Amino acid sequence: MTKRVYNFYPGPATLPLPALKRAQEEFLDFQGTGMSVIEISHRSKEYDELHNAATELVRELLGVPDDYKVLWLQGGASTQFFMVPANLQVPGKPMEYVDTGTWSTKAIKEAKVYGEVNVVASSADDKFRHIPKDITFSDNAAYAHITSNNTIYGTEYHEWPDVPDDVPLVCDMSSDLMARKIDVKRFGVIYAGAQKNLGPAGVTLVVIREDLVNRAPESLPTLLKWRTEVARNSLFHTPPVFSIYMSKLALDYWNEFGGVAAIERVNREKAKILYDIIDKSNGFYKGHARKDSRSLMNVTFRLETEELEAKCVEEGRKRNLIGLKGHRSVGGMRASIYNAMTLEGVKALAEFMMEFMEENQ
Amino acid sequence: MTKRVYNFYPGPATLPLPALKRAQEEFLDFQGTGMSVIEISHRSKEYDELHNAATELVRELLGVPDDYKVLWLQGGASTQFFMVPANLQVPGKPMEYVDTGTWSTKAIKEAKVYGEVNVVASSADDKFRHIPKDITFSDNAAYAHITSNNTIYGTEYHEWPDVPDDVPLVCDMSSDLMARKIDVKRFGVIYAGAQKNLGPAGVTLVVIREDLVNRAPESLPTLLKWRTEVARNSLFHTPPVFSIYMSKLALDYWNEFGGVAAIERVNREKAKILYDIIDKSNGFYKGHARKDSRSLMNVTFRLETEELEAKCVEEGRKRNLIGLKGHRSVGGMRASIYNAMTLEGVKALAEFMMEFMEENQ
Repeated sequence: MTKRVYNFYPGPATLPLPALKRAQEEFLDFQGTGMSVIEISHRSKEYDELHNAATELVRELLGVPDDYKVLWLQGGASTQFFMVPANLQVPGKPMEYVDTGTWSTKAIKEAKVYGEVNVVASSADDKFRHIPKDITFSDNAAYAHITSNNTIYGTEYHEWPDVPDDVPLVCDMSSDLMARKIDVKRFGVIYAGAQKNLGPAGVTLVVIREDLVNRAPESLPTLLKWRTEVARNSLFHTPPVFSIYMSKLALDYWNEFGGVAAIERVNREKAKILYDIIDKSNGFYKGHARKDSRSLMNVTFRLETEELEAKCVEEGRKRNLIGLKGHRSVGGMRASIYNAMTLEGVKALAEFMMEFMEENQ
Repeated sequence: MTKRVYNFYPGPATLPLPALKRAQEEFLDFQGTGMSVIEISHRSKEYDELHNAATELVRELLGVPDDYKVLWLQGGASTQFFMVPANLQVPGKPMEYVDTGTWSTKAIKEAKVYGEVNVVASSADDKFRHIPKDITFSDNAAYAHITSNNTIYGTEYHEWPDVPDDVPLVCDMSSDLMARKIDVKRFGVIYAGAQKNLGPAGVTLVVIREDLVNRAPESLPTLLKWRTEVARNSLFHTPPVFSIYMSKLALDYWNEFGGVAAIERVNREKAKILYDIIDKSNGFYKGHARKDSRSLMNVTFRLETEELEAKCVEEGRKRNLIGLKGHRSVGGMRASIYNAMTLEGVKALAEFMMEFMEENQ
């Protein structure tokens, strides 16, 4: 039997096993074509159907209104860090950002290439342990940018900041896409690298409100304008076929699972199990994020010493609980429990954490 | 038994079957990790080894000298169309291009975003049926750009143009990478989307001479500077893991196959079989490309009428010869016989072409 572990890596991350099995089964012969899905032309009928089905699944699961476009792009969220300002800049208007950690900081750096940037709120002073409250964006901002979940610190917005009328809210949802119900209408642009909650690395989902599609200056390179791929249904050039295909199989799975409402219910249960252990551990496990900002996706915590943390990571590994080491910039431990991490996997981790505490208190 | 056809699609294209089988076998459990290769962290030891092995195989098979860097990027050759001028522009110096068809034309368009472009030679007047001879680049060009093989027209450089000292030759080798021995030292930059001769769509190979890495202006977005990924071994952000992995499996196959010398020998045999049929058909099959410019990779030809062409495509399809329709801009037929198309597949096509001619003459 194939060995499978519980994979708590922060991304690329665990994927639904039934989707992986389906991909494996049809890997040499996609739907009777006699070709692997990665060998068929992106101009073929077979690929076209797959491509459109993936888009429709995103529309349905995320609840994308008709006046929004759905794009499959390459280059990761890191590429959207500069495509957002490149497409949404307005001469004379500041681009406004909230800084909630590494990924926001990187996005801010790229926006500065294109013009004036205001960081209207930041939790840097608190080592990014919380999401700022009472965020106020300017009336004349070109756009307002937030990062909904912060993988490294384990923080996540629990409510969305208000934005002035006519200021589009842009959100990097790479690490909590489809983790909970959202109202897409609150956002002008949502983007997400696939490799945490959607599928494998190599594709980036971008959802754009129609009226923002044409804002980009004509002088940009063709592929840096979102509207190039809007006009061509993300088929202006060869798309990252496998990553879209695998995302589609995962989306099929989530659709049958009951959609985002069902995903959210399980995600809340998973997160509660781990945060309860932390909170009831009398300080053996110390949560990194402030309670009012805790992430459903990345549970970050420290132990008394670095030696004990290393021991915990290693003993977890021996029990097939993989990827529990925290990011080097925060240290400690991190359990990434994205949509595809099962309740069973979280329970196995919880059991281990209880035992480890008893043995090492 | 799994159905497999002969796949003559122009890209994404057929891949070596042993490499596909290997990927299928280990799809749920990569090297005993208990995770799919698409689930493991790109910061893990397992991925790092795979990533570096893929790079080493490119170095060995392509014969990349030590003073060249090898990058794995996203966005296809279409992204290099603007990254090349973005990185190699020099104020006051023209960027010089040879126009041999659609892909060159697209590259030229993107360069114009960055400055003055000279098209020093073109075969547009001849509907791109040949590769221009006696190409002369200026002494003060920032760089000289060519497209080694032209998928749509079925033309390919048989010898490389000379460039003045200090003018780097940049080559889009997307459609004939590793199809024949080349001397990398003739080039300043080589780039290639993977989906024809290397692996699946979603990754782009870029080979850059060291001294060109630092030419890009600091003001570019981080990821648009080649040097960002040179400094980070293509791991500045999450790489397209599956596409690199699958390319690595294909490269393993080619390495065992005997390297580029062996690939070239078979490629020449495959192309000769088809061109001989065309040349001996007394005009039943009319080659599109001029003989002195014929491609080893894309054999383009027309029949007497469009009806006959459609019939030929359809009857081929019934015999599991897939993807023989020509590009809409040229019409007619095209057999794309990239490295991974077997001699057996070409012989099956040849047999069909002979029979079709007999029956329809």
